[in-house]
Formats: sequence, C-alpha cells, structure tokens
Amino acid sequence: MIYITRRERFNAAHRLFKPGYSDEKNLEVFGKCSNPNWHGHNYELFVTVSGEIDPETGFLINLKGLSKLIREKIIKEIDHKNINLEVSFMKGRMASTENLTVAIWEELETPVQELGSKLHCIKVYESENNYVEYFG
Amino acid sequence: MIYITRRERFNAAHRLFKPGYSDEKNLEVFGKCSNPNWHGHNYELFVTVSGEIDPETGFLINLKGLSKLIREKIIKEIDHKNINLEVSFMKGRMASTENLTVAIWEELETPVQELGSKLHCIKVYESENNYVEYFG
Amino acid sequence: MIYITRRERFNAAHRLFKPGYSDEKNLEVFGKCSNPNWHGHNYELFVTVSGEIDPETGFLINLKGLSKLIREKIIKEIDHKNINLEVSFMKGRMASTENLTVAIWEELETPVQELGSKLHCIKVYESENNYVEYFG
Amino acid sequence: MIYITRRERFNAAHRLFKPGYSDEKNLEVFGKCSNPNWHGHNYELFVTVSGEIDPETGFLINLKGLSKLIREKIIKEIDHKNINLEVSFMKGRMASTENLTVAIWEELETPVQELGSKLHCIKVYESENNYVEYFG
Amino acid sequence: MIYITRRERFNAAHRLFKPGYSDEKNLEVFGKCSNPNWHGHNYELFVTVSGEIDPETGFLINLKGLSKLIREKIIKEIDHKNINLEVSFMKGRMASTENLTVAIWEELETPVQELGSKLHCIKVYESENNYVEYFG
Amino acid sequence: MIYITRRERFNAAHRLFKPGYSDEKNLEVFGKCSNPNWHGHNYELFVTVSGEIDPETGFLINLKGLSKLIREKIIKEIDHKNINLEVSFMKGRMASTENLTVAIWEELETPVQELGSKLHCIKVYESENNYVEYFG
Repeated sequence: MIYITRRERFNAAHRLFKPGYSDEKNLEVFGKCSNPNWHGHNYELFVTVSGEIDPETGFLINLKGLSKLIREKIIKEIDHKNINLEVSFMKGRMASTENLTVAIWEELETPVQELGSKLHCIKVYESENNYVEYFG
Repeated sequence: MIYITRRERFNAAHRLFKPGYSDEKNLEVFGKCSNPNWHGHNYELFVTVSGEIDPETGFLINLKGLSKLIREKIIKEIDHKNINLEVSFMKGRMASTENLTVAIWEELETPVQELGSKLHCIKVYESENNYVEYFG
Repeated sequence: MIYITRRERFNAAHRLFKPGYSDEKNLEVFGKCSNPNWHGHNYELFVTVSGEIDPETGFLINLKGLSKLIREKIIKEIDHKNINLEVSFMKGRMASTENLTVAIWEELETPVQELGSKLHCIKVYESENNYVEYFG
Repeated sequence: MIYITRRERFNAAHRLFKPGYSDEKNLEVFGKCSNPNWHGHNYELFVTVSGEIDPETGFLINLKGLSKLIREKIIKEIDHKNINLEVSFMKGRMASTENLTVAIWEELETPVQELGSKLHCIKVYESENNYVEYFG
Repeated sequence: MIYITRRERFNAAHRLFKPGYSDEKNLEVFGKCSNPNWHGHNYELFVTVSGEIDPETGFLINLKGLSKLIREKIIKEIDHKNINLEVSFMKGRMASTENLTVAIWEELETPVQELGSKLHCIKVYESENNYVEYFG
Repeated sequence: MIYITRRERFNAAHRLFKPGYSDEKNLEVFGKCSNPNWHGHNYELFVTVSGEIDPETGFLINLKGLSKLIREKIIKEIDHKNINLEVSFMKGRMASTENLTVAIWEELETPVQELGSKLHCIKVYESENNYVEYFG
C-alpha cells in the first residue's frame, strides 16, 4: 500500500452565519467571519489516494488523470466563486472549512474509485495557520 | 542606510469589473475576477522602511510600533472585509492588487514618517504566483 | 471524525547537556547543542484536535478558542524564554524537541477536552529540517 | 511512542518510459516525462522514525546519526545523478516517484533498526504539487 | 511606476562542462554538476515588469496575457527538457543558471514591450538556496 | 551586470538590553527581547554578489566557493552560539538584526572581493515576519 498526494489551489469568497441567529449571536459565534459583505481566502487542497503500484507503469495512479478529475469536479465549481451562493456541493451547509473538506470528499470518493484507486484523505488549508483533514 | 521589512497578513473579498462595461466586456477583460458574487484571497503585505540605525538601541525602527501602525491603518480596515464595498481607502478605485498596493502606500507614508523613518516599498502578494511592488 | 490543526509560533533559548556527563561526553552526545552559553530557535507548533462537526455551527471546535488556549497554556510560558531555566512544564526534563513535544501534549490534553474536543497530535518543528510528532 | 522526521534534499535526472512500448504509447502513458533526452527535479526526502524517548538524553534517535545515515545510503548514491542509469537501488525499476519511495524504504529499514529505532515513513516530494508516502 | 511579478515553474535536465577541458578539469570546476549522465532541477522563474497603472482597468498589465507569453516563449521550450540538447535559446551557451537567466531576459524583452509594458527583472531559482537576478 | 544569491542558515541565542538602562526602561524599549535569560532564533542569511558572467564557465562566481566563504567567516562563528557573549564581530554592538546585518557585510565585503566578485546585499531573516537588508 502506497499513498500519493496532489495539491491544487482555488480562491473563493464566503461567510459564516446562521439565519436563525441574531446579528449579535452571529458575531459572537463567528466573529469577523460573519461579515455580511463576505470575505475570502486562497485555499490549498491536498488530495491523497492509496493503492498498489502498477508494475507495468510504476504508477499508483496517473497524476495527470487525478489532477484533471480534481479540476473538473472541484476547482471548476469553486474557484473564483462564492461558496455560500454558487457552489452546488455546498448547498445547505455552513461554509466552514470542516464542511467544505467533507463535501470535497463526497464529490471525489466515487470518481477516484472509477480511476482504479482509493481516496484516503482530503486536506484543506484556509490560511497558513489552519487546516482540516478528513479520512472518510 | 538600512532597510527593514515587516510582514502582515489579511484576507478579503473583492471583484474586478467596470460599471461602464457590458457583462461580456467585463468577462473578457477581467475573466473569472469579474464574478458578481465576489471571490477572495489571503493577501500578504510586506512593508519596507529605510533609515539609519539608532546607536542607542541598535534599531532602525521599533518593529512593535511599525506592526501596530500597519494593523491600525491597514489590517483593521481591510481584514475579513469586502474591498469594493467596505474599505475607505479603496473608495472609487478598481479593486486590483496594483491599486491596493498604491493605496496602502498612501495610507502609510506619513505615519511612517511620524515614527521617524521613511517608507521604502509596499509589496502585496495576491497569490503564491503574483505580487505587486510600489516604491512611491 | 474530522481533524483540525492550528499553527502557533514561539522562539526560545535552550541547551542540551547532562549534569552527570563530563564536558567531553556532553560535546560528544549533544554536539554544538551543548554550548553552555545557550543557543536558540524559532519553533513552529501544530496542534491537531479531532471530533465531530457541530451541525449548528459547521465547526469541529472554535479555532479562536483553541488559539487562545494554546497561547495561554504554551506560548505565554515559553515565547522569548529560556527552556532550561524558565519554562515550568519543562522542569526536570532534558530540553530536547522530543521532551518538549510530549510536555506540550500533557499541558493541552485536559484543557482541549474541556473545550469539548480531543487532542490528536502535537507536532513541533525545531528547524526546517527537523520535526517531532506525538499522538499520546 | 514518538515520531521524529529528518528532511534531506537531492536533485537528479530521470525519464519514464517502457522499453516494450512504442514511442507513441510511451508518450500517451508518460507524457512529457518520457522525453528521451531526460528531465530532472529537486527532490525533498522526509524520513520518519518512531520509538521511545531515551530518558538519559531526551532523544528518540541522534539526528546527526540519522542524517549521516541518509546521506551515506541515499544522497551520495542519487544526488546529481541519473536515476535510470546510475542509482544502484533503482536498477530494473521504472524511475517513478512511487518506486523511488519504496526503494528508499528498503535501503533504510535495516540500518535505521541498527541505530536502535524503527523506520515509520518515507515521503518524497517530486514537485511542490506532488508527493508520495510509504509506510512499509 | 509600479512593478508586478509573475511566477512560473519548469523542470529540466542539464550538465555543466566544457568540451575543451579534461574530465579532471571539468570535475574540479563544476563538481557534481559535470556528471556526463545529466542531473536536473525544479526551477522557479519570476518575471517582473514595470509601468503605469491603466486607470481604465486598474492593471499594469493583464497577468493572464503575461502568463500566456511566458508559457509560450519559455515554459513550452524548456519544461521537461534537456537544457544542453533541446532548448533553442540556450544553444552555444554553458547551461548555468546565470546564462539561463540572461537568455530568458533576451527572449522576453521584446514581447513584453509589445504587450505595452517594460521588462524589469528576471529571477531564476535553481534550488531553495540559490537564485540569480538580471535587470538587463 | 548580474546578481547571484546564496542562502545559508544558523541559529543563535541573543538578548536586547542596554547596560545603562534600568530594568523597566529595558523592558519598555526592548520588550520580551530583553529577557536576561536569553531567547533565540533560527536565522536565514541571504548573501547577494554582483559581477559579470565569466564566458569560460558561465559563472558569475563559483557558488561552492561563496558558500565555503560564508560558512568559514560567518556560520562557524555564530551558529549555535550566543550573539552577545561569543561572536567576535558583534563585540560592543547591540545584538539587533540591524547591527548583525551590517556586521556580516563588514566581515564579507573584502573576502568576496578577493573571490573576484562584489558584495551587493546582505539580507537577514530573524523570523518569517521580519527581515533586514543592507547594501553597504
């Protein structure tokens, strides 16, 4: 069993708030992240897949294919977008990095399997000081 | 003459578009950056000041003081904000990194002088692949 | 189960030596790190906690709260300090990165639990080429 | 149980191709990496070992010793070399990062044990966007 | 006057040697870089252009256009290639980072001017410890 | 004219204080940096030299030679040392990054000239957020 990781990047606007909360409650729980005029980030996405090395090619997975998959399923949907308003796989979820990480896992799990590999970890950096990891 | 640089960070939402342009023209000139629902970035700001070393302290400038100044004049105004809608020193300017860099220079030039030093360069990273520098 | 990591930074002086060893033996085992006049590092600390996502907030843990906890329990104690002489949680231990990593785990395990989460990993970088991880 | 990681760096030329494939097939499977005139990379190698802390020294392993071992067994063999033509432990294997990672594990497993520790992970970065991990 | 910088990346094989030198002399002057079987690097290229901000767009230069230019003139020619054997603009020059930096300047100076801007600096990293800058 | 830069690293303990100041005054001016028990940093040193490319070798300067010079004159003197107590070229100066940068310039200016090149800039990072540059 071996693991290979591909990094891709995107940027997006978002906002953390709960419709049921008062403005004061939103500010208390989410701080500056609740700004109604949005803010945004450069996100870094690390996708790790696991499997056996193909003795024919020396590859676990064709990284070009993995990169293409991530771009089609994730980057095209979210890059230069508003996570709360425009990203289909985040509909109905708080736009937190935790939820984003799980949602990206759900988008990629099956297509990675169809490439003959197994999704092992999704890791998302929101800033140089914070990141979230999900292993399914 | 010696130079000292302080890095500070902020994130913000923004959008590049021109009211006088049609949607097609905006898309052609500004690409994905013209998204009406905004997008955003983690920005890195490098402020370089120049001067002589004070033989008493060994300092060109007190970095705590410089950091406090940048936070009060710039970070408090722009961090977790929408550059187009909420940042007073960007009012009436396209929210490009070029204009942002010049605007930060204009905000800091006099206060840095009042700290007894001289502003030398403002450098702003919008992503790991792009940055703008302004020397006044 | 999901994992979130917060990075904090500190710098400190330290020295590796054993009172029972001769100077030669100390030099042999600890090399330049045994310098009696101390040396120092910029340390990077990564604190990873695990748990379930709160469906109300989309958070695993409030990162502001986690950051505040790390600053109160660790950074305030060790930043700009001498690890051998001044850091209470390192009393009686060799000032190695291994011991420092375990000691930080011991300081944070209970308070993280009181925040409703579970400490998963402490990772400490001593330089860009070396880091230690501890999982309890 | 604690984990310590040492980073070392090397650069090398390589080429991905299969003698049994036609030129077209090689190009299709390996893309630009099949260039018969070679290309190359700056590789980053992370070696993680696990064990107990020696209460005498506060060390899991003497990092100087670990670094010396990696340099003798790996860096001396591969740095500024052609992986396909000159690296003994890659003889008869496709020069992929996956195979390289496994081969480095095989070279280091026993010598790390002889230093009184246990090899836990080999991680190799081929570029800032790709890395491979192997845990034995 | 303002400055904007675009980073692009490429990797390549190369070799430093002088046909007129003996093998011993080549080894003495160029060390491991004279390996006849080649070695290689991940290079980072920073292209800085200068000019005035266009008040219409807020741009100094359209970065998409600059990036496309660099990819067509430089990256397509050199990425995954052998600098000594395959790169037209390095024909007849020692494959040193110094010569590479000057050659990239010569390739880009006129086309950048045709985009309405002025080439200010070419900076090439060969490793994390070495880089070369050329200002024309 | 071309510029080449070599990065070297060292770590050291230091303290900022003025014998003539009271403890309160030292604390007010130098903050946590005045801790009498020392603190320390991982420093990064960038040495930039300028000159013409030697058409024979393609080199501005032999980087191996430059690296060896920096290690002999600077790193051997300061690495794993106490800047206030043990570094000859810092005798009688406040141990600020500004003074350190100027002192390193003074140590290297003549020896770089003897290598046939010209010292252009000394740049010292004290942390990821602060650096000092000196051009003579």
